[in-house]
Amino acid sequence: MSKLVLIRHGESTANRDNIFTGWSDVPLTEKGLAQAHVAGKQLLHSAIDFDIVYTSVLQRAIISSYIILDEIGQAWLPLVKSWRLNERHYGALRGLNKAATAKKYGDHQVKEWRRSYTTVPPLLKTTESSRAYQAFAVTEPLGESAEMSWQRVKPLWEDKIAPQLRDEKNVLIVAHGSSIRVLLKFLDKISDDDFMKVEVGNGEPIIYHFDQHLQLLSKTNL
Amino acid sequence: MSKLVLIRHGESTANRDNIFTGWSDVPLTEKGLAQAHVAGKQLLHSAIDFDIVYTSVLQRAIISSYIILDEIGQAWLPLVKSWRLNERHYGALRGLNKAATAKKYGDHQVKEWRRSYTTVPPLLKTTESSRAYQAFAVTEPLGESAEMSWQRVKPLWEDKIAPQLRDEKNVLIVAHGSSIRVLLKFLDKISDDDFMKVEVGNGEPIIYHFDQHLQLLSKTNL
Repeated sequence: MSKLVLIRHGESTANRDNIFTGWSDVPLTEKGLAQAHVAGKQLLHSAIDFDIVYTSVLQRAIISSYIILDEIGQAWLPLVKSWRLNERHYGALRGLNKAATAKKYGDHQVKEWRRSYTTVPPLLKTTESSRAYQAFAVTEPLGESAEMSWQRVKPLWEDKIAPQLRDEKNVLIVAHGSSIRVLLKFLDKISDDDFMKVEVGNGEPIIYHFDQHLQLLSKTNL
Repeated sequence: MSKLVLIRHGESTANRDNIFTGWSDVPLTEKGLAQAHVAGKQLLHSAIDFDIVYTSVLQRAIISSYIILDEIGQAWLPLVKSWRLNERHYGALRGLNKAATAKKYGDHQVKEWRRSYTTVPPLLKTTESSRAYQAFAVTEPLGESAEMSWQRVKPLWEDKIAPQLRDEKNVLIVAHGSSIRVLLKFLDKISDDDFMKVEVGNGEPIIYHFDQHLQLLSKTNL
């Protein structure tokens, strides 16, 4: 048997300011730091001995993972930072205020951009990969639908995480709204339509309990 | 060409209280946290684009590495936590006050235990490996001389770090007094006798600059 815990990072400055963010590397707010501490303290009560931790290459998730590991007294755990767990890339919406964008394009359109599985946001014209993404040999996307982000999360799941869970390892993933939503869609077999309703709060641990065939035994939201 | 930066963790509670520590997993003090921030800010001026970071599996080094990576804006870097970079295991001296021990055994003996390359501290009778060391398939030692700690640092150097430096990668190591002292002995070709005088301050970056054959071009203490 194995456990998988998914936690979205604490509140970022962009969450606080209601801004589309994606791959922009914004920091946590004081509230976000506190949320990560609370998530860690909650997780400590579950007394899960983890074997490995995955996070994205964005600091809001990385710092959240540090805090959570510290709270559960497992700072020594191997920590894998993968761009595959990054937030969905919001394309040309990046940096725009969500409320102002809704005023301009309408609530329906913004909801589509934010919650739909397949709708692609307006794309950037060009992209310049930072040194981080050059190091991973990844070209920063011009924009991604949730589905497109699943296409890059999936190889990490199939090649690393799922085999470790089958091997009865306990895995912690500290990631983002979209990268966790697509994992939930996959794990809970949620339809494209119902995906619109899937929300993940900052710093709220979701615990999956699997048998060795990766069949779901139970799911708990802390 | 490549750069290697060595930084000892910030002040720990055991440093503050003048206690032999070794593999005991003590936290940083407020001063230690501040020292890690200062080390990061100093390193930022050197404008080194690192490729990989190594630290131990002890929280005082891990947390220092987090802070330094954050200060230099390279939180995304791959971070390898290796027990091979742990502080030297102080055996039965662990937890003892250094001044009280000097009173009991004499200054000369304590200096030998602390600074000698080959002197083994009084050994523990038994050891119980925690889950962390079980995970790494390592039996916690009963005590180590500095030389014994070099024997376990060396494979990490030879198999991972040296090849990466030869491959012109820039490497950051955030570790401990002893694990850095034995690296300095190796890199600076210090004799066993002169090893007694080698000291490494908390949070003081040491920068090595190598050519692609790992020949030393320059060394800077920040």
